[in-house]
Amino acid sequence: MEIDKAEEIGLCFGVRRAVKLLEEAASKYGEIETLGPVAHNQQLVERLIKAGVKPARHLNQVQSKILAVTTHGTSPKVLSEIKTRHIHIIDTTCPIVRKAQNTAKELAEAGFDVIIFGEAEHSEVQGLLGWAKGNGIATLDAKQIGTLLKQVQDKKPYHLGIISQTTQLQPALAEFVGQVATFAAKSKEIRFINTLCGIV
Amino acid sequence: MEIDKAEEIGLCFGVRRAVKLLEEAASKYGEIETLGPVAHNQQLVERLIKAGVKPARHLNQVQSKILAVTTHGTSPKVLSEIKTRHIHIIDTTCPIVRKAQNTAKELAEAGFDVIIFGEAEHSEVQGLLGWAKGNGIATLDAKQIGTLLKQVQDKKPYHLGIISQTTQLQPALAEFVGQVATFAAKSKEIRFINTLCGIV
Repeated sequence: MEIDKAEEIGLCFGVRRAVKLLEEAASKYGEIETLGPVAHNQQLVERLIKAGVKPARHLNQVQSKILAVTTHGTSPKVLSEIKTRHIHIIDTTCPIVRKAQNTAKELAEAGFDVIIFGEAEHSEVQGLLGWAKGNGIATLDAKQIGTLLKQVQDKKPYHLGIISQTTQLQPALAEFVGQVATFAAKSKEIRFINTLCGIV
Repeated sequence: MEIDKAEEIGLCFGVRRAVKLLEEAASKYGEIETLGPVAHNQQLVERLIKAGVKPARHLNQVQSKILAVTTHGTSPKVLSEIKTRHIHIIDTTCPIVRKAQNTAKELAEAGFDVIIFGEAEHSEVQGLLGWAKGNGIATLDAKQIGTLLKQVQDKKPYHLGIISQTTQLQPALAEFVGQVATFAAKSKEIRFINTLCGIV
């Protein structure tokens, strides 16, 4: 019987996949940069720096002509800015985040206001807000949505989409969705689409 | 200034519309029957009987060749049974109920289980269950849904649609939807579509 030892204990599927893509790219192109750090794991960041994968804090600081979008993904606006600068993109957006981005986009295109259960400043959530095309709001506090809805709900009919930052926890999401649904039951329609990562 | 006096105080848009259709039909065909009483209003039922519109309790008791479906609507199965008997249908289903029926049908066809917030024995709800094609459940008690979901939620992914009997009250619906959403936040997707009558 063969025993496979986990090489990177604690790294999720999306990050393992990204590391592989980044190491392949660094080996092919020489030095590349990532838009923000690949992970919060400092050991991993240092291992990648040694392999030629360096984090840039902001698009303005990028010097390489090869730039990787991290697992957290980014907004269509940032992608477009990168292209304008003729920088080649290596997209390591986690497939589960990509699915959440597509959901945000589809909801916004179908006329839904998009509520994202997540940390507004997190780069994944910033990306999701971008895909919601200006029709999104991110919060962990359902009461904030309640206050907003009180201001609009008697003025015009509205359609509400609810998604989640992929790494939030199920019980907190359940409570949030329940509260928002109660606040929003005067809406024409509510669509909650579960974008939590089910693999973690 | 002209003052319009309401002729039938207390009758909603759907019933007023149905009464007009029934009186026109009785005047055209002579005697017709309705599948169940047109309304709970006994005065109105008697007025219609005088005009030639008689309620039949059940399809088996229908003697006329002209039968009206009431504002509450009915299921596709009953409609099909009426057609099998070569009885001409006058459909006075309230347009708001029709919309709820279409919503139940669309949700079921899209693979959603359909939860109807309503009285399970009410004829409108019986009709809605019919349009949900065997994938529906009707209740006023969110906890009942919670119990059902506990039995299924770890077994397979599910999609949940929530609609309402058109005459339920907004605050009770809001509470119900909030509770069900909390119970069901492990689902792949929840769609709440507001089928309350907004005219009453």
